[in-house]
Formats: sequence, structure tokens, C-alpha cells
Amino acid sequence: MIVLKGAEVSAKIKAEVQRILENSEGQVPRLAIVRVGERPDDLSYERGAMKKMEAFGLEAKSYGFPETISDAEFKEEFKKINEDPEVTGILVLKPLPKHICERDIENMMDPGKDLDGISPVNIAKVFAGDSSGFAPCTAEAVVEVLKANGIPIAGKRAVIVGRSMVVGKPLAMLLMKENATVTVCHTKTVDLPGTCRNGEILVAAAGRAKMLDGEYVGPGAVVIDVGINADGNGKLCGDVDFESIEGKAAMATPVPGGVGAVTTAVLARHLALAALGAGQ
Amino acid sequence: MIVLKGAEVSAKIKAEVQRILENSEGQVPRLAIVRVGERPDDLSYERGAMKKMEAFGLEAKSYGFPETISDAEFKEEFKKINEDPEVTGILVLKPLPKHICERDIENMMDPGKDLDGISPVNIAKVFAGDSSGFAPCTAEAVVEVLKANGIPIAGKRAVIVGRSMVVGKPLAMLLMKENATVTVCHTKTVDLPGTCRNGEILVAAAGRAKMLDGEYVGPGAVVIDVGINADGNGKLCGDVDFESIEGKAAMATPVPGGVGAVTTAVLARHLALAALGAGQ
Repeated sequence: MIVLKGAEVSAKIKAEVQRILENSEGQVPRLAIVRVGERPDDLSYERGAMKKMEAFGLEAKSYGFPETISDAEFKEEFKKINEDPEVTGILVLKPLPKHICERDIENMMDPGKDLDGISPVNIAKVFAGDSSGFAPCTAEAVVEVLKANGIPIAGKRAVIVGRSMVVGKPLAMLLMKENATVTVCHTKTVDLPGTCRNGEILVAAAGRAKMLDGEYVGPGAVVIDVGINADGNGKLCGDVDFESIEGKAAMATPVPGGVGAVTTAVLARHLALAALGAGQ
Repeated sequence: MIVLKGAEVSAKIKAEVQRILENSEGQVPRLAIVRVGERPDDLSYERGAMKKMEAFGLEAKSYGFPETISDAEFKEEFKKINEDPEVTGILVLKPLPKHICERDIENMMDPGKDLDGISPVNIAKVFAGDSSGFAPCTAEAVVEVLKANGIPIAGKRAVIVGRSMVVGKPLAMLLMKENATVTVCHTKTVDLPGTCRNGEILVAAAGRAKMLDGEYVGPGAVVIDVGINADGNGKLCGDVDFESIEGKAAMATPVPGGVGAVTTAVLARHLALAALGAGQ
């Protein structure tokens, strides 16, 4: 089984970002990371994103707000960031606390700064197969892993486990645009193992630790693991039981070291593109 | 094979529309049908929609423009209709002539009047599984046919042939919301017959006359035909070769007399709901 490492894909994207930056003038693009509360997941993602932006020659600034901030106060603060000409692109760490209306924030978000594709305009573009906007970074990272490794997508049976707005649904659209025949599975799918075994490309985005084992993988499949979970011992693991698919999958991404590194690289590319006016 | 007739589904929706109208006050909701040019398809759809609105106790008005109207002039006219308080909902017959920017019209469209779900806000809602907006009528009509006939959707394998923005893609989202396991096929699908035979619900939305014959239908499948084409003799036909699936499909919609009548009924329901402020 070939292990598809995220670092190599990220390095390719870094070279691309540097070409974009060489051709652009003016200030270094700046990412605003907007966080409410101090969830360990968010803090860890934020650290990773800050490091990645720096490594890619970009700027990042964290905007942290207390979990007690009111809906109205947060919107006021968000509006300032959204309208700040110094801010090139925005990443809002989600989910926001329940008392803050996420939908309102999505609707307020300037599509040109919406690097993770949460605004209606960007969602509609992903749906239409229009690549002038920004797709959710994780969904796009899956396509990047496939392309960077020369894995054909057109005409392939792609099975996605999970129907979230951040991965499953937008990824279905992105893979459809690449001419894959896409099936989306979820908790209500009957015979999930059999459906998954039918996938030549299998994407695990269910958010359940080690949920997919060898029984779910067809011979020679390419397995992309989007999950980031803690196993029983608190160790980071994916949605795929990596050891159990050895000898079945032809290729697979590990967790950690797989899609995660590519997601922040895609975020960096979106930031560089936003500086050029993409998504507007 | 049970023939699923659109008229029966339409009658159920009519009763629903009448309940909505009884509970609403003020003016009768008015549909604006916006058409550029005189394409026979458009004129035929327009006549059908006008008749249906009337039969459902609603009003409809046609706004026809010459095919030579400029992009700027059409936008000005569209703006007036869009802002007219007498207009409850709008249906733009598409595709518009190539010199008119359809995307601009989609972006201009008031989401609360956008009965056929072409504005980014409504697309994003369909994508998110949020039923407070308007889905494209044809896609919703497919779900209506299934529900009105008591056909279970949850956990079923649904295969859609076609990935358009008016049927294939939004229908994938609507069926996913109903907990079907959805596969979307298209021109680049390898082994289309085999993939289609795997569907317990098979939706033909390819736009090719009689393209799907008995070879594409699994035993006991429910076949929904969205196609409206002319056969070699100029006679109306669907994407399914109806005779050839006899003895294979358990149920199927005919063309004419199937989904088409339901589509305009869904349009009428959207109009009645728009009067109540849905989609805003």
C-alpha cells in the first residue's frame, strides 16, 4: 500500500503560492482567523494554520473572542474584520457557540474574503462547478491529494462517507466536476461496507474514529481519510483503521500526516488568490 | 408495472395550495413568467404554467421580450419586475439568449420571489438541506412523486442520470436530505447501465430521448422520468424507453403525464408560499 503523504502535496501547493506572490504586488496577503472560545481543536487548528501561512510567506492574525460574547457584539466585531482593508481573507473556526447565529455570519461574509467557502455565493459556485470562487478547503484538499499524486478521477467510482457542508457535499460537487461518478453515503445508508467496497476512490469524512476498516475497502481502492479524531487512548487518528486496510487499498492517506497538511496549504492558496481578487 | 401519473400528485398539491390560500389574506398571489424570444419549448411551458396557476386559483402574467433585447435593457426590465410589489414570484424561462448574462440575473433575483431556485441564496439553502427557501421545481417534483405515492426514500439507493443545475444536482441534495444513498451519473460514467441497475430509485434527467431502456433498470426499481424530448417522429417522449422497462421496473412515470404536471404544481405551491413570505 502506497502511503499518500500530505507534506508532498503541500510542498507543491507552496511552490504554486510562491508563483502567485511573485506575480502580485503590494502588501503581503493577511489571513484573519476568527475564533470564539478556546476549544482545544480550534486552538490546535489555529496554530497549524498560523505556522503554515508563515512558512508560505503569508501573514496571519488571530482574532479571539470570549465564549461569552453576545451575538450582537460578535457580529459587530466580525463586521469590522470583514470590512478591514488590511484583511485579505477570513477563516471562521466553526462551529461557533450556539448563541451566535452562524447563518448570519455566513450571509455577512464578503465572498472575496471567504477562504473556506461558507458564504451563499461561494456555495452556489461550488454547486455550479464554477471555480472562480472558494470551495471549502478540506473538500478541495481531497481533490488536490488525488491530482498531485496523478490518480485519475474521471470516470472513476468515488464513494464519500459523510454528507457535511464542509466536506461531503462540496466534495461530491468537486469530484463530479472532475467527471467522477459520485455516491454519497451517510448514517442511513443500508449496507455501508458493500457500498464503500464499490468505490475506486473512497473518501472517509464521517467524523468517527477508525470507523472504516478493511471490510469497507475494495481491492485496489484509493482511500482518502479526512477524519481527525482521538482514539480510545487520546491519540490522533482518522476515520479509517489504517492497519486493517493494508493489502486491500492500493493507496491511502495517513492521519496525521495526510489531508490535514493539505487543507492548510489550500487555505494559503486561497489567501494568495484572494489578494488577486479571486472570489469577488 | 404501476404507472405513476402526475395528475394525481398534482391534485394533492392543489389541495395543499388551497389550504395555504385559505389561511392567507389579501391579494391573490401573482406569478411573473419572464421570457426572452419565442422558443416553442418556452411558449409551451408558459401556456402550461399559466393554465395551472389559473386552475389552482392563482394569477399569472407573461412578460415576453424580443430576442434582440440587449443585456442592459433586459436587466432594466427584469429589475422592474423583480421590484414590483404586485409580483409575488418570478419564473425566468431558461436558457436565456447567450448575449444576456444569466448569472447576473440569478444574482439580481429576489430570493423571496425566486420560485425556481436560481439565486445563490436558494441554491445554498438546497445544498444545506434548509427547506426554508425554494428548490428548483423539477427537482422537487421528483421527490413529490415519490412521497405522494408512498414510495420509501430513506435508506434506498437512488441513482440520478444527469448533473444539471435544474435537476441532477439539486435533486441529489433533496434525496440526500430524505436519507437516500445517492449516486449521480453522467456522460463520463463508466458502465452506465450497470450503475443504473443498482438503483432502487432511478431518475432519468439526461435530456436524451429514450436513452434508458430495460438494460438500465434493476428488478423492481422505481423509475422517474424527467426528460421532455421529441422522438424521431416529433412526438413527445421522455429519457426512458417506456415500453422496454415493462416487466423490470415496479413503477414508472410516463411522459407526457408524469413529472411535468407535478413541476407546475410545485411552482404553484412555491407561489402560494412566497405570498406568505417563504424564501425571504
